[in-house]
Amino acid sequence: MLILALNCGSSSVKYNLFDWAGKQTLAKGVVERVMIGESFITQSVPGREDYRLEKDCPDHTTAIQLIIRTLTEAPSAVLDNIDAISAVGHRVVHGGEKFTRSVRIDEEVLAAIRSVQHLAPLHNPPNIAGIEAVQNILPQVVNIAIFDTAFHQTMPRHAYIYALPYAWYEQYGVRRYGFHGTSHLYVSKRAAALLGKHARDCNLITMHIGNGVSHCAIRNGISIDTSMGLTPLEGAVMGTRCGDIDPAIPHFMMKMADLSPDEMDRLLNKKSGVLGITGRYTDRRDIIQAAESGDERCQLSLEIECYRLRKYIGAYLAAVGPLDAIVFTAGVGEHSWLIRQMALQHLEHLGIHFDKQRNRDLASGLEAAISSPDSPIKVFVIPTNEELVFIEDVAAILDGSYADHMDFAYSFAHPDYKPR
Amino acid sequence: MLILALNCGSSSVKYNLFDWAGKQTLAKGVVERVMIGESFITQSVPGREDYRLEKDCPDHTTAIQLIIRTLTEAPSAVLDNIDAISAVGHRVVHGGEKFTRSVRIDEEVLAAIRSVQHLAPLHNPPNIAGIEAVQNILPQVVNIAIFDTAFHQTMPRHAYIYALPYAWYEQYGVRRYGFHGTSHLYVSKRAAALLGKHARDCNLITMHIGNGVSHCAIRNGISIDTSMGLTPLEGAVMGTRCGDIDPAIPHFMMKMADLSPDEMDRLLNKKSGVLGITGRYTDRRDIIQAAESGDERCQLSLEIECYRLRKYIGAYLAAVGPLDAIVFTAGVGEHSWLIRQMALQHLEHLGIHFDKQRNRDLASGLEAAISSPDSPIKVFVIPTNEELVFIEDVAAILDGSYADHMDFAYSFAHPDYKPR
Repeated sequence: MLILALNCGSSSVKYNLFDWAGKQTLAKGVVERVMIGESFITQSVPGREDYRLEKDCPDHTTAIQLIIRTLTEAPSAVLDNIDAISAVGHRVVHGGEKFTRSVRIDEEVLAAIRSVQHLAPLHNPPNIAGIEAVQNILPQVVNIAIFDTAFHQTMPRHAYIYALPYAWYEQYGVRRYGFHGTSHLYVSKRAAALLGKHARDCNLITMHIGNGVSHCAIRNGISIDTSMGLTPLEGAVMGTRCGDIDPAIPHFMMKMADLSPDEMDRLLNKKSGVLGITGRYTDRRDIIQAAESGDERCQLSLEIECYRLRKYIGAYLAAVGPLDAIVFTAGVGEHSWLIRQMALQHLEHLGIHFDKQRNRDLASGLEAAISSPDSPIKVFVIPTNEELVFIEDVAAILDGSYADHMDFAYSFAHPDYKPR
Repeated sequence: MLILALNCGSSSVKYNLFDWAGKQTLAKGVVERVMIGESFITQSVPGREDYRLEKDCPDHTTAIQLIIRTLTEAPSAVLDNIDAISAVGHRVVHGGEKFTRSVRIDEEVLAAIRSVQHLAPLHNPPNIAGIEAVQNILPQVVNIAIFDTAFHQTMPRHAYIYALPYAWYEQYGVRRYGFHGTSHLYVSKRAAALLGKHARDCNLITMHIGNGVSHCAIRNGISIDTSMGLTPLEGAVMGTRCGDIDPAIPHFMMKMADLSPDEMDRLLNKKSGVLGITGRYTDRRDIIQAAESGDERCQLSLEIECYRLRKYIGAYLAAVGPLDAIVFTAGVGEHSWLIRQMALQHLEHLGIHFDKQRNRDLASGLEAAISSPDSPIKVFVIPTNEELVFIEDVAAILDGSYADHMDFAYSFAHPDYKPR
């Protein structure tokens, strides 16, 4: 059985063709510059040179047609026939309150996804365009939606309702939703396996730190709070997003600098975060290097980012109760020993003791504990694998074995699972 | 020596005439509806019936003239001669980065207060109007400014710089300032006295919970972080202010409900907080009563407010390090056993054990520990006394003994001090 995973962004379509029986990716690639001209596809296949073709894609349908042709026609083909694909899994950013898990897409589901697109006006419309394109081009395949928000639908009301006019929640859906759900799901199951426990017996804080950053408070295996909110703008300091600020600041700066609401929105999402503080960089490697060379603003950026990681650890420790482990994941969380070190320092009084040397020496891509052997709270680095959640959800829905994530036996939740 | 404390708001002037030698208030009162018509003064003097007079006050000068007449002329007089007043202490809400302590007002200081009035456009202009009025009416007295922000100027950069374009800090002063400084100062000194330690040896979290709510992380006696930010809108859930939200929400709601930035600002400041959640109440006593009668939104409001108090305790515990005590103060913090109980529950794993019965039975107005005798972290309820900080700062500046708050011997920091 072959599964095609699709991630339709506003101007790109990423894909991954996965062979379920062989448990391997056959091809992955991306169409870039969709709808904006000079678009092209790149594809990588294990054992082959990367393939690239320029081809205008004025819409998502053309882009998906290009992907299918690239997968099936020489010289880039990996399939004889597109009918080999049993299902297409679509990443859908925002499921609102309607979706607590992955789901087979029918007209009702598609209508429900459309009904919450105001919550993610940049993300859900291209997701929907991708679903409609596949329905037209490949009418025989099963389409399945996997949501960024679904994992967090277990949050209690006191964690997701804001102290805002309640009618905004009732009429417009203003509440905390949270994102990066497949990542928090994956690393929480892996952490349980590393702890030798069932997920339902684990209390965790998972720290997804990449260009986007979100944290999740997990009690008895389920999300009880997360740092992103209505949108991915809230929470930690990110690459270009501001995270938590005084909510009076947008109004103050609009007045001071004569900015429109749209300009303010763009500045908070695209020009803030570590880019805003440093004035130059979003990549933490650049920031660390510049800080080492004496750049004060880059040093400040690291201190702010890591201080706020520490505060979230404390806040979620209070929210969750007695904790089994903290997990670092995603680009920065997996690869930056310095950011992990700065985030974990001075937390011994909370039962968090990490091994500086192990943290520093950890090879990239490995799962490992970096806590001291006697630390009451363990600290893990676990490379995330959102695609595997994606593929397993699709396969399980196809074979009818899919269930609530607490009752479903993901392969990676098994103690014997070995991450690649 | 008599000291007149003045608190000029946009439409009110509060005052307190204090006898420094006798350590008592001679008279206190307020002029209401300044500048908006139908203004009146009310004054209370110990042992007398309350006094009230209607008198139009089209500006702060007229209001202060009315206060002086009320203090010196029959039937409300408490003074023979206004010259008995040595100094006037002015509450100034926002001192920006220029003021780290209370200060004698001269032209340079007044110019500096004016230079930061964009940071508090509703508060600093009436504060300035009050100072100018006293300079005109009572040219012989010393004017002293006491700032809400000064106590928090010890925060390190990583706590006060937001992850926003850095030029906003440089050009417009966008950073965390914090408020309620005199309250956090007072209760932190009292907590040190109750602990039998010098303030410099105390690590504390102080929770000022009233209509406005702010928390302060105090390490070695000084503020290292606080929950209010550029303005008092950030942080905890308040009576009508939203506190922490996704910063994308104002933009989202302006689009959805076709609101202007000014309307949005008003809704976040005046129609949110517990008023927003409950739809009806700002007074926590009303909310608690309604929750007990089965009002679900009032129950939810209590849960949200207290859950977020718990998260701040956790966050500041991570920020401060090993903690001596948590302090509850201000209207709600002093008087609501239920909110204290809900804020403190499930924190035993952090070393916080409180005595439910002592907490519940505590008489209003008393200083007391409500932690269990063996709790590693103590919990105190300490009625705040911002006016005393105010008066002592003024007296100390007058006699030349004033210093940094860590080096100045406030009367209430002494182990033998007995709060009224």
